[in-house]
Amino acid sequence: MDVISVIRTKRDKGELSPEQIDWVIDAYTRGEVADEQMSALAMAILLNGMDREEIARWTAAMIASGERMNFDSLSRPTADKHSTGGVGDKITLPLAPLVAACGAAVPQLSGRGLGHTGGTLDKLESIPGWRALLSNEEMLHVLDTTGAVICAAGDGLAPADKKLYALRDVTGTVEAIPLIASSIMSKKIAEGTGSLVLDVKVGTGAFMKNIDDARELASTMVALGTDSGVKTVALLTDMSTPLGLTAGNALEVRESVEVLAGGGPADVVELTIALAREMLDAAGVKDADPAKALADGSAMDVWRRMIAAQGGDPDATLPVAREQHVVTAPSTGVLTRLDAYDIGIAAWRLGAGRARKEDPVQAGAGVELHAKPGDTVTAGQPLLTLHTDTPEKFDYALKSLTDAWDIAEPGAKFTPNPIVLDRIA
Amino acid sequence: MDVISVIRTKRDKGELSPEQIDWVIDAYTRGEVADEQMSALAMAILLNGMDREEIARWTAAMIASGERMNFDSLSRPTADKHSTGGVGDKITLPLAPLVAACGAAVPQLSGRGLGHTGGTLDKLESIPGWRALLSNEEMLHVLDTTGAVICAAGDGLAPADKKLYALRDVTGTVEAIPLIASSIMSKKIAEGTGSLVLDVKVGTGAFMKNIDDARELASTMVALGTDSGVKTVALLTDMSTPLGLTAGNALEVRESVEVLAGGGPADVVELTIALAREMLDAAGVKDADPAKALADGSAMDVWRRMIAAQGGDPDATLPVAREQHVVTAPSTGVLTRLDAYDIGIAAWRLGAGRARKEDPVQAGAGVELHAKPGDTVTAGQPLLTLHTDTPEKFDYALKSLTDAWDIAEPGAKFTPNPIVLDRIA
Repeated sequence: MDVISVIRTKRDKGELSPEQIDWVIDAYTRGEVADEQMSALAMAILLNGMDREEIARWTAAMIASGERMNFDSLSRPTADKHSTGGVGDKITLPLAPLVAACGAAVPQLSGRGLGHTGGTLDKLESIPGWRALLSNEEMLHVLDTTGAVICAAGDGLAPADKKLYALRDVTGTVEAIPLIASSIMSKKIAEGTGSLVLDVKVGTGAFMKNIDDARELASTMVALGTDSGVKTVALLTDMSTPLGLTAGNALEVRESVEVLAGGGPADVVELTIALAREMLDAAGVKDADPAKALADGSAMDVWRRMIAAQGGDPDATLPVAREQHVVTAPSTGVLTRLDAYDIGIAAWRLGAGRARKEDPVQAGAGVELHAKPGDTVTAGQPLLTLHTDTPEKFDYALKSLTDAWDIAEPGAKFTPNPIVLDRIA
Repeated sequence: MDVISVIRTKRDKGELSPEQIDWVIDAYTRGEVADEQMSALAMAILLNGMDREEIARWTAAMIASGERMNFDSLSRPTADKHSTGGVGDKITLPLAPLVAACGAAVPQLSGRGLGHTGGTLDKLESIPGWRALLSNEEMLHVLDTTGAVICAAGDGLAPADKKLYALRDVTGTVEAIPLIASSIMSKKIAEGTGSLVLDVKVGTGAFMKNIDDARELASTMVALGTDSGVKTVALLTDMSTPLGLTAGNALEVRESVEVLAGGGPADVVELTIALAREMLDAAGVKDADPAKALADGSAMDVWRRMIAAQGGDPDATLPVAREQHVVTAPSTGVLTRLDAYDIGIAAWRLGAGRARKEDPVQAGAGVELHAKPGDTVTAGQPLLTLHTDTPEKFDYALKSLTDAWDIAEPGAKFTPNPIVLDRIA
């Protein structure tokens, strides 16, 4: 087996054999295949695609590159959720304790943000004392005692994916559906969850800008999960505008706690409950009522125990950015568009996100929304508040907002997108 | 300027801007753009192409990465030849002294073989004492005093190409016409020749397997040369069967000397004279008669001076391989095919070529042909003689020859391909 013949096969629009895939993933993990060879192969895959058998084998080879976890010792069924990433997507924070409160165990291995989409771990790290890094034993202990755990994936899970993901990030090969699908699913299958609900985002703020691409990605991942014995369902959800009224780290934790307290923005509550129902159904938990678990405080109880079990103080005051800048509505009328991507870039530039993996993030930075598409706004009213510790970034952030919204005449008819666009099982 | 946006532009079938091209070539040469980024870009270029403006700029940027040579101090016009590589292609050896004997100066910067095609420097190094590495001053001196020089290109010419060529070799991105054309032409233009004749090979033993690809490559290179003020002409020539009756290093030197002595195989003589006429015409030398210069010994005189000027002994006995193995014709009839690629692979496996850049080659190894397509052969007569110092390689070499020829019934009508298939100027 040699790497050039593998690259040529895909370059010339051929199908990679199981042996070629197993070999190239293993050889890349061991360092026998060099980064410059794998990046050429990744570009060929991006441009020429892989079929269902190739993607399944690629995923299996990445799983086989590392350890597999096992939750058989738990008394409850496990359910996990994965979002393909959006702006203001804090859903994991209320969702994990909510589903745990309803009877499933939620082992939520999460990541950090890169680019304009935030990362769950970055958000939770704005809670004083909270630790993302747990050993496998600690993780199992938190999960067993509280019903939910949100932590960083260990180095042992799918190391081939870890290496390939970092490579794709610097070589313009992120946006390949076969590689996105196998990357997500290799980690989730290796993690050992019994069921999985995928939240595939569609719209300007998502990797998938149109519903056809999102549907292809969702179908690919559902097939991969199902073929591996993981009950997998996908919701396609709207990411044309940010979720809720905040995009940032501490800002989103605060909003999540509002949801757990029975309040919070309607779209966040709606999506949290919709995903909770799917997870409980996939895990085989009958007769659960997520709306009730939000209203009666049982989800909040799990949240507090879960945060405390990872060293966090659920009662601590969350960090606030040193400076604010208010952006006002330029005219009176109906807000018909508030662009997720532009808001995500602004939050990122304000310090909520990072340009390189090793950069720190600001806990307090981000964007607060004072209106959502469908709302009527008045000229001069606050539309957005920008938060940062580095006010010299305001101008840079404002540059991403020059075409971030549309305001139609007063009384104009406008129906915002539904949150859930489609379901694939 | 950032590399990911450059990669994405080409990945998404866009046109690279002059600024993007200048930046990425310069940044790659300096090491700011990493190998894994350039290989992803090379794969995107291979699959999505570049237009004429992009290729011209890419070539100019590679020239600008290093020094440019200048032959203005010579009293004669300069003419160079470049072959895209074939099996048994020893034409440079008789051609350079022949053109010099007719009145042009021939600065022939050559390479080593990789894969199944031989390298001119490897062939000449089978002459005891001959040195391929000359300083720029030595090169100019040999050229000035003998009229021709064949030597290795210095490190100073198009270093970006040198780096990119090595990268393409290990990443399955060799076969991209824009990259092949810009690689060849950047070196030839930087070298400073006044005119250039391209020998673009077509057939199983060439990089270009069909005439349409060869014509596209030839047209691209002729346009690049012309746009840079170098008078450039291309001949498309047949590489379905080896040139002459030898493929190897010392074997080909011996055959070249036969041509310079007024003998040699008809196809080698025909192509040498055709290319000599094109070079002399492109250089503006009138009333030269290459056939006469072969017959009267004047080309041989230049050869002897040229070899001696680089430390070689033109009268030395050439190395002979330690072992021979004869392959006989299995039936009687007309030889209608003797495959260039299969013979090239056999010669390579016998030790005439190298698998890695750092490997040595055997001076005596190779394949000798006893018949050419169109000849009548008799069952049991010698068809090929294999030469090697490592007889344990015979079996491996013979494996490449299991389908290397076709023999039709005795008296069958068969017309071999002409040597020169087309001319592009």
